[in-house]
Amino acid sequence: MKTAQELDALDPLGHLRGAFQVPEGMVYLDGNSLGPMPRTAPDAMSRLLHNEWGQELIGGWNTSDWIGLPERLGARIAKVIGASGREVMACDSISINLFKLLVAALELNAPRKKVVIERGQFPTDGYVTHGLSNLLGEDRISIVSVDRDDVAAAIDDETAVVLLSHVHYVTSEKYDLADWTERAHAVGALVIWDLAHSAGVEPLKVSDAKVDFATGCTYKFLCGGPGAPSFVYVAERWLSQAKQPIWGWMGHRSPFEFSEGYEGANGTGQFLTGTPSIIAMAAAFEALSLFQHLDFEAVQQKSQSLSQRLIDGVAAKKLPVQLASPEEASMRGSHVSFRHPDAYSVMQALIEAGVVGDFRAPDVLRFGIHPLVNSYLDIDRCLETLHDVLADQRFKEPRFSIKQRVT
Amino acid sequence: MKTAQELDALDPLGHLRGAFQVPEGMVYLDGNSLGPMPRTAPDAMSRLLHNEWGQELIGGWNTSDWIGLPERLGARIAKVIGASGREVMACDSISINLFKLLVAALELNAPRKKVVIERGQFPTDGYVTHGLSNLLGEDRISIVSVDRDDVAAAIDDETAVVLLSHVHYVTSEKYDLADWTERAHAVGALVIWDLAHSAGVEPLKVSDAKVDFATGCTYKFLCGGPGAPSFVYVAERWLSQAKQPIWGWMGHRSPFEFSEGYEGANGTGQFLTGTPSIIAMAAAFEALSLFQHLDFEAVQQKSQSLSQRLIDGVAAKKLPVQLASPEEASMRGSHVSFRHPDAYSVMQALIEAGVVGDFRAPDVLRFGIHPLVNSYLDIDRCLETLHDVLADQRFKEPRFSIKQRVT
Repeated sequence: MKTAQELDALDPLGHLRGAFQVPEGMVYLDGNSLGPMPRTAPDAMSRLLHNEWGQELIGGWNTSDWIGLPERLGARIAKVIGASGREVMACDSISINLFKLLVAALELNAPRKKVVIERGQFPTDGYVTHGLSNLLGEDRISIVSVDRDDVAAAIDDETAVVLLSHVHYVTSEKYDLADWTERAHAVGALVIWDLAHSAGVEPLKVSDAKVDFATGCTYKFLCGGPGAPSFVYVAERWLSQAKQPIWGWMGHRSPFEFSEGYEGANGTGQFLTGTPSIIAMAAAFEALSLFQHLDFEAVQQKSQSLSQRLIDGVAAKKLPVQLASPEEASMRGSHVSFRHPDAYSVMQALIEAGVVGDFRAPDVLRFGIHPLVNSYLDIDRCLETLHDVLADQRFKEPRFSIKQRVT
Repeated sequence: MKTAQELDALDPLGHLRGAFQVPEGMVYLDGNSLGPMPRTAPDAMSRLLHNEWGQELIGGWNTSDWIGLPERLGARIAKVIGASGREVMACDSISINLFKLLVAALELNAPRKKVVIERGQFPTDGYVTHGLSNLLGEDRISIVSVDRDDVAAAIDDETAVVLLSHVHYVTSEKYDLADWTERAHAVGALVIWDLAHSAGVEPLKVSDAKVDFATGCTYKFLCGGPGAPSFVYVAERWLSQAKQPIWGWMGHRSPFEFSEGYEGANGTGQFLTGTPSIIAMAAAFEALSLFQHLDFEAVQQKSQSLSQRLIDGVAAKKLPVQLASPEEASMRGSHVSFRHPDAYSVMQALIEAGVVGDFRAPDVLRFGIHPLVNSYLDIDRCLETLHDVLADQRFKEPRFSIKQRVT
């Protein structure tokens, strides 16, 4: 087996690691929660502030095309998810976009009213669906929330919409996007995919997969900054028909006519609501520049190679944790989870030792693999530190701290 | 009459002008559209990027209390609008917040369903109301949209909600907040105020005025940056009952428990939806620091003094424009509008000459007065330039440009 140093030296994506800011000595395995900062972000922000806001003031909406930024950011996101620029618009948050897309999809598929969601997927997906049901009532939306194993059976010829997370935020289990979209279409249902945990780390092809609607965020693997904007994807074939219910002025066909009656913009323009945050979008726009010319097959290959090294290393070292993610690489997203009864304390000890992953209740250690940021050495350091922590039962003590390895 | 120089020298708020970045030679009379950048904004942003996102990464949510930022920003906004910190939360955009507040208010005042809005107020207010009606149907919301003069008569004992812009975005006409709130309450209606054009430039006292709900933005007079976050205000007495319909995970009582069922947070916390943009909120938070210890009576006094100088100057110079704002200072917000048949060309010529106001179709020249930014000299330069432009009929020619006065 090659050493981490050898693999890092051969890594065709290795040159990108320097594009991101990770503190010296930190092994950052949480890019699936908040991506690290692109090193060019502060300069991009400084230009926006000093040269645009500071110099152009209100004129920046035209001169610097702030007004077109949601669309331009959307076009960059489109390249990452395999869509056309026309099909993607950056706007709002995932929660709000799910609300908009659910209403749009339900209306397109009326009189069907059944929405299938998976129990245990990221909570906001279910919360938003139930909130909409609370607003519209059971005669307009009927929620079927089932365990993962029962999702297939729940999708039937009464189903209006199937709303699923492409990659499960805890287990990393992944749906085959094209296959499950086809399954839904076969019975006349529409799909909404939450791509939060897959955008940026694999070759998504939402247009080819005939996905109807999707959303996701830019603050995880796409490194757009804390709370960076979300996006909507609306398939070309639905662009003229899909209508969302929050009629803000930015979604109007001609916002600056300030006309009395609402006429929604064409296409994804109608999915805009209020005035977009230019500052937030500019940071995400800068980050997305790093994702424009990537070979996402190679990105995924590296993700799987790192993940496999982590899984194999845990097995080889006989570490007392249990894999909570699929063994088969093609069934996983870009994070790997393990269970341990004292997962919370273990993760605290890991973080103190400079290996930053996530704890997810009740017993999950989650390690996000960012193929542009992480190295093989990161994986080895994670394994060594995990070994040290687990070997030293003091990790259960509240103030236990293992010395950080700096290699 | 004192000269502009004398008045500027005596101005108790004059020392604040240096806190904002306005290009040399520009007279910026558009702070009601986009406030100028506080000079400390780039450093604040740099600290957020380098020290927080760059160094703390995911840890920033706790270490730098990003998770509390919507509430902390809300508390700063509360000081500006005369509310308690518990009553205000920074979140989303005005359009989205109006949607949330309308649903909350309608539910509180059921079975009433009538919503009174003013025709010609800022379009998003009407658009959002009609969008909600389109979603819920006429048996749940019935919109009465009337001209300003007919608003009073439209508010009756069937009215559920009165949704009004405190200051009119074109004419600057202002409602007496306490008086109109009382008028609504007298017949059992609730009020939602859009404070976009008044927050930051006058002594608002929403709690004392018994306002039920309000929203507004931080990108106008509050100088939070292009597209900076909006906020909701919910009166203390409604905090335990008001429920909004977009059930995002950040509005959950315990978001990090990732529990299956939605339980809304207490108070304004339930008005959060998805993950907030920390970058956008940090810029606004920095800007709001300039508004924490202001005497808003003095701020308003200066606004009125500058506005009056502009109105009086137009009259004294016999400029061929017609005042489109109330003559009485107490009836105006912090902008002044004039009509001219060639308003578009006139404003273009003014902007080229360095006097930046706004054109509003079909014939309005709008000048925003920012009491912390603008000087008496700004007003004199605006008057002189307006005089020059109007005296030279070439302003109607597309490429006409009058030389910028630099004084």
